[in-house]
Amino acid sequence: MRASRYLIATQKETPNDAVVISHQLMLRAGMIRRLSSGLYTWLPTGLRVLRKVERIVREEMDRAGALEVLMPVVQPAELWEESGRWQQYGPELLRIQDRHDNPFCLGPTHEEVITDLIRTEVSSYKQLPANFYQIQTKFRDEIRPRFGVMRAREFTMKDAYSFHLNADSLQETYDVMHDAYCRIFDRIGLDYRPVLADTGSIGGSHSHEFHVLAQSGEDDIAFSTVSRYAANVELAEAVAPAGERPAPSKEMAELHTPGQKTIAALEEAYGIAANSSVKTLIVLGETEEEGAEAPLVALVLRGDHDLNELKAEKLSGVASPLQFAPEARIAAELGCGIGSLGPVGMKIDVIVDRAAAHLADFVCGANKDDYHLTGVNWERDVAIARVEDLRNVVAGDVSPDGQGVIEIKRGIEVGHIFQLGNKYSKAMNATVLDENGKEQVMVMGCYGIGVSRVVAAAIEQNYDDAGIIWPEAIAPFQLAIVPINMQKSEAVTQKCEHIYEALTAKGIDVLLMDEPKARLGAMLADAELMGIPHRIVVGDRGLESGKIEYKGRRDSENSEFSADQIVEILLSKIAH
Amino acid sequence: MRASRYLIATQKETPNDAVVISHQLMLRAGMIRRLSSGLYTWLPTGLRVLRKVERIVREEMDRAGALEVLMPVVQPAELWEESGRWQQYGPELLRIQDRHDNPFCLGPTHEEVITDLIRTEVSSYKQLPANFYQIQTKFRDEIRPRFGVMRAREFTMKDAYSFHLNADSLQETYDVMHDAYCRIFDRIGLDYRPVLADTGSIGGSHSHEFHVLAQSGEDDIAFSTVSRYAANVELAEAVAPAGERPAPSKEMAELHTPGQKTIAALEEAYGIAANSSVKTLIVLGETEEEGAEAPLVALVLRGDHDLNELKAEKLSGVASPLQFAPEARIAAELGCGIGSLGPVGMKIDVIVDRAAAHLADFVCGANKDDYHLTGVNWERDVAIARVEDLRNVVAGDVSPDGQGVIEIKRGIEVGHIFQLGNKYSKAMNATVLDENGKEQVMVMGCYGIGVSRVVAAAIEQNYDDAGIIWPEAIAPFQLAIVPINMQKSEAVTQKCEHIYEALTAKGIDVLLMDEPKARLGAMLADAELMGIPHRIVVGDRGLESGKIEYKGRRDSENSEFSADQIVEILLSKIAH
Repeated sequence: MRASRYLIATQKETPNDAVVISHQLMLRAGMIRRLSSGLYTWLPTGLRVLRKVERIVREEMDRAGALEVLMPVVQPAELWEESGRWQQYGPELLRIQDRHDNPFCLGPTHEEVITDLIRTEVSSYKQLPANFYQIQTKFRDEIRPRFGVMRAREFTMKDAYSFHLNADSLQETYDVMHDAYCRIFDRIGLDYRPVLADTGSIGGSHSHEFHVLAQSGEDDIAFSTVSRYAANVELAEAVAPAGERPAPSKEMAELHTPGQKTIAALEEAYGIAANSSVKTLIVLGETEEEGAEAPLVALVLRGDHDLNELKAEKLSGVASPLQFAPEARIAAELGCGIGSLGPVGMKIDVIVDRAAAHLADFVCGANKDDYHLTGVNWERDVAIARVEDLRNVVAGDVSPDGQGVIEIKRGIEVGHIFQLGNKYSKAMNATVLDENGKEQVMVMGCYGIGVSRVVAAAIEQNYDDAGIIWPEAIAPFQLAIVPINMQKSEAVTQKCEHIYEALTAKGIDVLLMDEPKARLGAMLADAELMGIPHRIVVGDRGLESGKIEYKGRRDSENSEFSADQIVEILLSKIAH
Repeated sequence: MRASRYLIATQKETPNDAVVISHQLMLRAGMIRRLSSGLYTWLPTGLRVLRKVERIVREEMDRAGALEVLMPVVQPAELWEESGRWQQYGPELLRIQDRHDNPFCLGPTHEEVITDLIRTEVSSYKQLPANFYQIQTKFRDEIRPRFGVMRAREFTMKDAYSFHLNADSLQETYDVMHDAYCRIFDRIGLDYRPVLADTGSIGGSHSHEFHVLAQSGEDDIAFSTVSRYAANVELAEAVAPAGERPAPSKEMAELHTPGQKTIAALEEAYGIAANSSVKTLIVLGETEEEGAEAPLVALVLRGDHDLNELKAEKLSGVASPLQFAPEARIAAELGCGIGSLGPVGMKIDVIVDRAAAHLADFVCGANKDDYHLTGVNWERDVAIARVEDLRNVVAGDVSPDGQGVIEIKRGIEVGHIFQLGNKYSKAMNATVLDENGKEQVMVMGCYGIGVSRVVAAAIEQNYDDAGIIWPEAIAPFQLAIVPINMQKSEAVTQKCEHIYEALTAKGIDVLLMDEPKARLGAMLADAELMGIPHRIVVGDRGLESGKIEYKGRRDSENSEFSADQIVEILLSKIAH
């Protein structure tokens, strides 16, 4: 592409309304423009990236055996009534009426439409498994669209739906799709993790989210430094520390700690390390009969660990949702303030976290205001009736799969695969005849990739002060040719045109910055802002000494290469 | 693609609700399924065709220098208010409200959005001309969607918009786009015509429609048998017959024709050929002052020709819209019934059609009930004051460009290019600074192709009793391999797999019909119904004698080719 026939549309100023870096850089690099809240036009540079992502997704879906279809954006309400979602779905589902006042919606997802199609087209188990995908425009009427295309109202999504006779067949396709997703994000060149996800109220089934690791992510992801284990921090299992609990080496003693009510205060005042003390939290337990007062339950964690409320409220005997006990009730029933609680002599049920249960010679509250106990040991000083996983994992924990230790980073969700079971097929009566001629409700999986969001996520992970740094596979252009005084120098023109033609013929996406009167500095800044992975500068002075200047987008310094061999050198550097 | 991993979804029965052949065949060939009125899901076979059309369109738009962008489906009302179309556009514009009750619409077209973008991004004449296109989902809430994807509510369209400093620049881009459209429809392999179109109320500027010629078309297209001239019949100029008007050879005489009031009656009763008589129609002229009665005007055409009302009402002196004079007024002012009118002695203004003006020795009414005149000649018997083009062209007329003669066929509009002028740019104040630093309103062109409609139109032009006959460039598959007893014969399996792998490796789209238990007749019928251009049958009996059966989709008979050389033979027949 020649810049003189292109719309570069870069901007120097950071737009006021853009908060995250990808949104800022997509506007500044001339990739998108805002039409209205949550609605964006993709300019040529942005669309080139989007299409490259689409192509990789399409190739891998085809390879995985999924068949491409295209379903309408506008969907009839009657199908959503059938599945029950017409009532359940919130105002993100934009409901509309056509000229005859018939109700429709703009599709935020297509489970109903595909299930309706498949129940008509597929009648025998012999036609299963079946897997269909589309790359298509979706609409979700977000209450507060933000972060550019990261959370837009209209966006491009790849959604796939698979249909099966049974759960084993679903698991097979699920595994194939899991691998396809890994190939997609590998090929795009992203640092990502397939993350075990909560299956929520649908329950029971398998689900993975695919997260691109980036500071601006909205989720905390815990993953192994060694293996492929990864999970949302809230869901990651905190395993017991390795080895046996150390043997007691100190005697239990009372310590007078007037006014000291927190782990931090104890550390500051007495040099007691947080990881050798425990904290005791009092929550409500399950009531045995309706109307009765809930009993209290004590949760004991290591001083440096945080309670994971999701884990706690899933435990038997603990009220769900989790509720902390009122201070007044604690004082009345346990006889001290919340800063002086401890397991020794505790009159209510105690649940101890795995890490806290592994401590020896620890410090805890004495259940008496202004006193703590030191040198406390389980079994010897206090019985330990129940040990559970109560806490959030932290960096350095042993990975739950036993391989490596946990690291935690923020992640942007770009994909989600999900074993739906028969939620939709049952509601919509999507059945096939099995080997015995008996009707069976099909089992379903669904598999999404936020194609436009991938573009933003790739930027969140790859940028510097000068702009975007594209992974080569999705760069809008792979090479920028920057001429100095192209209009005045026949030699520069010839050289640039030669390189441009030679590389374009090899299928490389080249941007020849041939705009008359463009300043060198501005061209270099544009090429960097746009994140073009390779760049050469062609000028008379260099050509006179047979040299052309080269810089990779991640290089800190320029290199010089032979002008005569530049085409071969570039071909060796650039994927084609 | 292996049929065992594909969704063929063919149907034997012609669906009740499908009227036109393309709709019937798209359903029967498993290309589309109806979701709701005017809303269709594209199944894998249909989508393969749609994507091939898209690719050709995209390649030619890129070649023409247009830049691809992607604008939202959902558009804010405020832009449509600015252009004035929020009020003007009928209920085809589906108006919706988001969760905050802000008004939006589903885009039937994108003039407003692109004009808004360009007025922001383009500020100098140096950035012009600029030409942007997208291939995108459109919505028009048709009152009566019909003919499947031919007139659907949601459809895929390629729309392009160009921006210019002046009309000359627009004309240049318009010509480039005209040629690109010809290349697109040539490459797809359609019999089409670029047709001069009415520019309607926008006026003045150039416009062409691209019509695929097919019986089921909704428009009559007149085109030259020799040159590229083509126009809507209503707009095609009817030129004067070649040569001089013949000299008179008969005397004018009165003929008593009791009760004969039509050209057909004269022909039947007296053997007077329609093309040697004239008919005289009385219409209202323009009133000179308001409230005054309109004068009468006589229009004279050859007996076998039809009045073109659009042409007549555009003439000075004729009322627009055209109104025929009441019979009572004709009788009162002209002294005879409408079956006996003629130019000789006519007391009102007479306008003569070019073909009628070329007659000698013709027959006409005598302006006296039950009498006609024969042997009438212009100039000698009756003055001829004004000659105009008044009639519809007919097959056999000389083409207006002087090359060949006119032929008339029905056409399906699949493309439209249009010089918009400043309609949108003026209303929305889209200006640039010219060479002198003066603000100039940009001049615009727009260019559409109904991508999904092209698929249907291609079928309307290419089918037979067995099904679709795809042009090779857009066929869902280029070759069908039909095995006989694949499951039982190792030789058949090996041969089929070999051919499949060899041709797929060359980029040819092959459908290997490998479904266990599929009957030969059903496979052959599917391959024909789906319109696959090439087909081979591989069976043990043929292989034993070293032969494979081949049939092109348009061939009437099977051929036999060497089994050993079949790959080379197919490569020579199939585009790759």
